Amino acid sequence: MSTSFHSKTKLDPFGTTVIEDYERLYAEFGIQPFKPLLPEMPDPNAAMRRGVIFGHRDFERVLHAMKNNDEFAVMSGIKPTGEFHLGTLQTAREVIYFQQQGGMAFYCIADVEAYEDNRIPFERSQKYAVGNVADLLALGFDPKKGYIYQQSKEQRVKDLAITFGRGVTLATMTAIYGERHMGLYLSSLIQAGDILLPQMKEFDGPKPTVVPVGIDQDPHLRLTRDLAFKFRSKYKFVPPSSTYHKLIKALDGSPKMSKRAHMSCFTLEEKTEVIGKKISNAFTGGRPTAEEQRRLGANPDICPIYDLYLFHFFERDDDVVNLYDSECKGGHILCGEDKQRLIKNVTDFVKEHQRKRRRFIDKAREILEVE
Amino acid sequence: MSTSFHSKTKLDPFGTTVIEDYERLYAEFGIQPFKPLLPEMPDPNAAMRRGVIFGHRDFERVLHAMKNNDEFAVMSGIKPTGEFHLGTLQTAREVIYFQQQGGMAFYCIADVEAYEDNRIPFERSQKYAVGNVADLLALGFDPKKGYIYQQSKEQRVKDLAITFGRGVTLATMTAIYGERHMGLYLSSLIQAGDILLPQMKEFDGPKPTVVPVGIDQDPHLRLTRDLAFKFRSKYKFVPPSSTYHKLIKALDGSPKMSKRAHMSCFTLEEKTEVIGKKISNAFTGGRPTAEEQRRLGANPDICPIYDLYLFHFFERDDDVVNLYDSECKGGHILCGEDKQRLIKNVTDFVKEHQRKRRRFIDKAREILEVE
Repeated sequence: MSTSFHSKTKLDPFGTTVIEDYERLYAEFGIQPFKPLLPEMPDPNAAMRRGVIFGHRDFERVLHAMKNNDEFAVMSGIKPTGEFHLGTLQTAREVIYFQQQGGMAFYCIADVEAYEDNRIPFERSQKYAVGNVADLLALGFDPKKGYIYQQSKEQRVKDLAITFGRGVTLATMTAIYGERHMGLYLSSLIQAGDILLPQMKEFDGPKPTVVPVGIDQDPHLRLTRDLAFKFRSKYKFVPPSSTYHKLIKALDGSPKMSKRAHMSCFTLEEKTEVIGKKISNAFTGGRPTAEEQRRLGANPDICPIYDLYLFHFFERDDDVVNLYDSECKGGHILCGEDKQRLIKNVTDFVKEHQRKRRRFIDKAREILEVE
Repeated sequence: MSTSFHSKTKLDPFGTTVIEDYERLYAEFGIQPFKPLLPEMPDPNAAMRRGVIFGHRDFERVLHAMKNNDEFAVMSGIKPTGEFHLGTLQTAREVIYFQQQGGMAFYCIADVEAYEDNRIPFERSQKYAVGNVADLLALGFDPKKGYIYQQSKEQRVKDLAITFGRGVTLATMTAIYGERHMGLYLSSLIQAGDILLPQMKEFDGPKPTVVPVGIDQDPHLRLTRDLAFKFRSKYKFVPPSSTYHKLIKALDGSPKMSKRAHMSCFTLEEKTEVIGKKISNAFTGGRPTAEEQRRLGANPDICPIYDLYLFHFFERDDDVVNLYDSECKGGHILCGEDKQRLIKNVTDFVKEHQRKRRRFIDKAREILEVE
């Protein structure tokens, strides 16, 4: 309805978040634009340079630590409900980036959330977790300089949740998450524990911590920043910082990939032929006819194929710029051709990744202490 | 206001529960009267014989196990917010009774609840806990046939709370407990874990379990019985049973003792001179003058002195009956005289108890693994 123009964007970590206008997040949620910090970043990664990471909260204090070689931490994780997909790939790459920049790295297997939100029994999520950790290691996470753990087995995050319980009223919980069952509230308290775990004394105490996440996870950050403040006298917490990446468009052209819609996305464990087929069938920003496309150019802003290149499958920024400005908008490439090139890039990456990943399965089992 | 005649009795484990009419609990909350089961009890204790234990839920299945020498458990505990008082004494005696009847006995130090509800830091509640456990042992609890634990250190009850979270809607939580902070909801999920812990496979799996508690704790039982049903397919829980004791009147004549009102109660660790003074100053059901009392008799039904004899400080039932019918109602004893006798009985008990308790402090530290 056109009258709903002023309706607020809703960020829901347990549901579907569709961001129609990233600019609005700055005004409505107090998220800061990332771009002004870019020139100061010692060695920005592709997602930062390309604007995939578009916003942050309080990132300056992490940047300051990076520039001064002070101690800082990076913390993020995965909900073990299936194989690595492009969203978890994004987060993993960001964690690894900050680890390589000298951050103490924490990677949480959010199996309590998988249980509470997705009803995945712990026995089943443990199987996914082994694969997920192997993916993380294959992507370059260094377990010797990081800590990978499952929520269900990490007593400290549960104990932090118990500590924090007293600091959250029902009104706060329903304002942030809506009316949910107790398990989801409990799981969000545990996530606050995850985010503040890097600041516990066993990990050398308070320090700037960056949490790179999809924008849909921001409610957890707001809750945790509030708790860090409320319990500051006991723990001396530094309020956690965050960076936000955009959500990659689904292959069917809808705003967000969803595991429930098989043709909207692919995982890193799918057969490359299947991935190729999905890309071939994908929605694009192309014109109805080749003639029109050559004459008028296509629209990368609505195109999942462009997003895939932008987020993951062009190594050089120049190639992205050239695709956007010239090949696509300039009508110099047709969508079929563009898709074939993407299929090759994706196939090369996925095959190589799967090969590496197999070598890390045993290590992953060892880290998770799985028989 | 006289128009509030039909207002419902409110059972609030986190607040103040005042029961004006125990009979009404049968109709309003589905609590069963205990009296009809009394003739079947193999060896009823004083609280059962005297009607202090007035109600139950589903106790028949525990009674059946007792009569058939089948396995059963008893579970209760204490919130470590101070020294043993007459309410915790009551519960402890009931736990010990069922242990002596062959029940597997569980005694929980509810330090998470002490933290969430009373803001007692864990370091402080641990100190109280040592004393509380020494009291329990001094009263006759056999640690070799029972399990004493702190919630904060018992991972299984926290993990049960996480499991149960998904089974409780916000509507259920607010219907049972009202609008409280997250910590109280979490603590009630952990209490559900406490109550069902005796049925975990490490303790030989499902079995009838009786939870002897004050009537104000009934909401926890209702929640837990509901959860036992919801998670029956995974754990095969037997719905927990409960017995309810009346709440002893406060020394100032108000319906419930409260630690906040120092003259309303005493602990087992107070100096006997102080206890004596409190009893001397207590409200009674007596008449304004000795002459009237001798002529008309006094009223034991409103008298905390009578309650103290009834609940704890007459060993023989005959003495209780004689006090109620003849000495008090018959006007054969004056309140001052009655108080002096009570002071002697209490002093004898407390001195002996304190002597025993000192011998159990080291054992209590060992059980709680306190340095």
